[in-house]
Amino acid sequence: MSQQLMGWDDTIVALATPPGIGAIGVIRVSGKKAIEVVNALFPSKDLQQQPSHTLHVGLLKTGATVLDEVVISLFKNPRSYTGEDVIEISSHGSPFVQEKIIQAIVTRGVRLAKPGEFTQRAFLNGKLDLAQAEAVADLIASNTEASRKAALHNMRGGFSSDLSELREQLIRFSAMIELELDFSQEDVEFADRSQLNDLIGNLTIAVQKLLHSFQLGNVIRNGVQVAIIGKPNAGKSTLLNTLLNENRAIVSDIAGTTRDTVEEVLNIDGILFRLIDTAGIREHTHDVIESIGVEKSLEKMRAADIVLYLFDVNNTTVAELEAIVQQFKQEAIPYLLVGNKADVNVQASSAFTAFPDAIYISAKENHGVEALKKSLIARTISGDIHTEATIVTNARHYEALQKLATALNDVQQGLDTHVPGDLLALDIRQCLHYLGTITGQITNEDQLDFIFSKFCIGK
Amino acid sequence: MSQQLMGWDDTIVALATPPGIGAIGVIRVSGKKAIEVVNALFPSKDLQQQPSHTLHVGLLKTGATVLDEVVISLFKNPRSYTGEDVIEISSHGSPFVQEKIIQAIVTRGVRLAKPGEFTQRAFLNGKLDLAQAEAVADLIASNTEASRKAALHNMRGGFSSDLSELREQLIRFSAMIELELDFSQEDVEFADRSQLNDLIGNLTIAVQKLLHSFQLGNVIRNGVQVAIIGKPNAGKSTLLNTLLNENRAIVSDIAGTTRDTVEEVLNIDGILFRLIDTAGIREHTHDVIESIGVEKSLEKMRAADIVLYLFDVNNTTVAELEAIVQQFKQEAIPYLLVGNKADVNVQASSAFTAFPDAIYISAKENHGVEALKKSLIARTISGDIHTEATIVTNARHYEALQKLATALNDVQQGLDTHVPGDLLALDIRQCLHYLGTITGQITNEDQLDFIFSKFCIGK
Repeated sequence: MSQQLMGWDDTIVALATPPGIGAIGVIRVSGKKAIEVVNALFPSKDLQQQPSHTLHVGLLKTGATVLDEVVISLFKNPRSYTGEDVIEISSHGSPFVQEKIIQAIVTRGVRLAKPGEFTQRAFLNGKLDLAQAEAVADLIASNTEASRKAALHNMRGGFSSDLSELREQLIRFSAMIELELDFSQEDVEFADRSQLNDLIGNLTIAVQKLLHSFQLGNVIRNGVQVAIIGKPNAGKSTLLNTLLNENRAIVSDIAGTTRDTVEEVLNIDGILFRLIDTAGIREHTHDVIESIGVEKSLEKMRAADIVLYLFDVNNTTVAELEAIVQQFKQEAIPYLLVGNKADVNVQASSAFTAFPDAIYISAKENHGVEALKKSLIARTISGDIHTEATIVTNARHYEALQKLATALNDVQQGLDTHVPGDLLALDIRQCLHYLGTITGQITNEDQLDFIFSKFCIGK
Repeated sequence: MSQQLMGWDDTIVALATPPGIGAIGVIRVSGKKAIEVVNALFPSKDLQQQPSHTLHVGLLKTGATVLDEVVISLFKNPRSYTGEDVIEISSHGSPFVQEKIIQAIVTRGVRLAKPGEFTQRAFLNGKLDLAQAEAVADLIASNTEASRKAALHNMRGGFSSDLSELREQLIRFSAMIELELDFSQEDVEFADRSQLNDLIGNLTIAVQKLLHSFQLGNVIRNGVQVAIIGKPNAGKSTLLNTLLNENRAIVSDIAGTTRDTVEEVLNIDGILFRLIDTAGIREHTHDVIESIGVEKSLEKMRAADIVLYLFDVNNTTVAELEAIVQQFKQEAIPYLLVGNKADVNVQASSAFTAFPDAIYISAKENHGVEALKKSLIARTISGDIHTEATIVTNARHYEALQKLATALNDVQQGLDTHVPGDLLALDIRQCLHYLGTITGQITNEDQLDFIFSKFCIGK
């Protein structure tokens, strides 16, 4: 990666804390001129003479004008987030004051950082690999215990170390192929052929495991879209309130994303369940599903990862339910049948033996709601959320792993059909390539810019 | 001030940066247990053994669970903002992660800080006087150069040093009274009587100057409410756009305040001019002032600090204007007459010699708009915004200064009417009391709690 091309000689500045009024705000400066420029604004001490990892209180001034009273955090390269000289200015939390400070710094030849540029520099300086850098953004966006854990695991190199293990195995495999090539003229019985088979088998299993984890990872990262539907008076709004009372999740908007629908979010066991169109439920109007054929309801159901179909056990016939289930199956919509108003003392469920997976609850009395939540979890995710194993949460990684799996399959087929060793070696190089795109050993500038552009400013 | 009463032995924690997603967030902990509690969550280093003003990178953990990778800023008492041991934890900017960290700290016997409690402790520990502490909140809320400067001047003790000068003079005066008391039995000609008079005269002048500055201070802090009114087609929306194009101010909402009207804000020379009901102007509807007697227009004008009455010079009679000016005067509404559509080459103004203070502009051609802005400044504030002198911006301080002025007047009258020295001494004590309430030498807990409750959390 060329330093010139990246404009890497530049020094960059950005507000690192969320915009708005607060007690303090932090302005981050990174690059060769970071200390020199801030030092020129900080007359009370010579920052150039101070050791790394120290704090300095004083006035920030441009000439005679005092900008603010600040605390300076000094990180000297390479012992910083970016690996460059970094200064963090902790100022009073007025956007106006922060703007003045950033202006004063920009005037002295520092430029405004692009989104994610600090982390991009950390990557380019070898402080983080690409998968770790991407996990930083995931950690910042994390809003449940599961997403926090997965992101932190990956940021700390959990995923990367899994990948480097795969890489080592591939290289070992490659070495064995070379060996085979060396002996290929001698037509001797090849002792290592089964070992090669084992190796590629193990690799395939490891990659499949990672690929499989993405279903869980996607749920952890993006949550599960749930549509609650049912006839009028099935008790939808009562159920909604019962669920929200106990599990309402506090979800912050990520800058730049807008919500076009009012949604309520439940946090069940660390997974966010996003309830589609709860406004409709509250208004008791257009969520009414008199006939399951209504286009609006279908749209809503198709948008959902799972449909929770609520019915009144005292007021629903088996034939009705059968018709509905039939439609779900026809449309290939995942569903969960929930019988409401079921008195726990009465075996209301007995009437519906045709639907063994149905859950019976009383939303009003808060009976069976725990079982319902467990069912929601079980029906929408497979695998243990609270595992310490790597969970792939990033669609880019998933795609690369898919390509890797295909390439591994090519290698396996090559082995099976006894293709020449040099062709096998080519396929293995392809495998190593896909692996490298995940951690960033193999990448290009446009791709990097794209990845980091999704970060927030100041990170 | 009793430590027990203030719960001052407590250790407190709060998020110090604005809420929301950002690159980083800072959690502040202050109090006797600050280092001990954070140290228990930070296994990589013994923070107790580290020197003050140092930075430490590591994992924050509760047992085996990693909370986040953080940077710890260590400030040991008394070298901290509050004067206590202070730790600032720079975490990843996910509200969820921050919440986890704060929970882990609270679990260990630290309590959530009340708004302004860090600054309150700084005050109680003698790091700041009350006027300085209040200026911290003003600095955070500052949104123009003028408000930033005034707040910073006061935070750095500019106002306080003016007050301590007044205080010294009062104490000198008091000493002279004591002297008079000592000699009162001897009936000698009193040499210092004129000196006493001079002193009280100087004090009165100084206090009046501070009181006078509040008009400017109030404008700097709160801006000026302007209503633009005029007949249809006078060019109100053109003028609005011309003004906004050049001077639109970026104004952040302070948490907790809501705006009930859409307003546009101009920043003219560091002063915010808040335009009342610009929605009306944009819609070309209910700002129409066909008859100046309309109740709605009157309401709008009464809410304004100044009314900008715009008229079309080619389409307005002197009699019309006279009637309007008559009404402004009757209602005691400050106004500025602005003749629009005035071709600069034609002495359109000559027709309106009866109104020498009127400004003539062409909003469309952007002629005369600079003069209009200067007039707005001149008509709404007296005094130099960019002075280095103290400007009183706080209504509480203004009230105390008013009481001080009254008490000084009592002293002056006492001198004039030769009341006994012991009564004069009583009045002087009253003066010192009012002075003390500003800087917080004399205050009570309820008042303190009230003052700091207006701060943001984490400050």
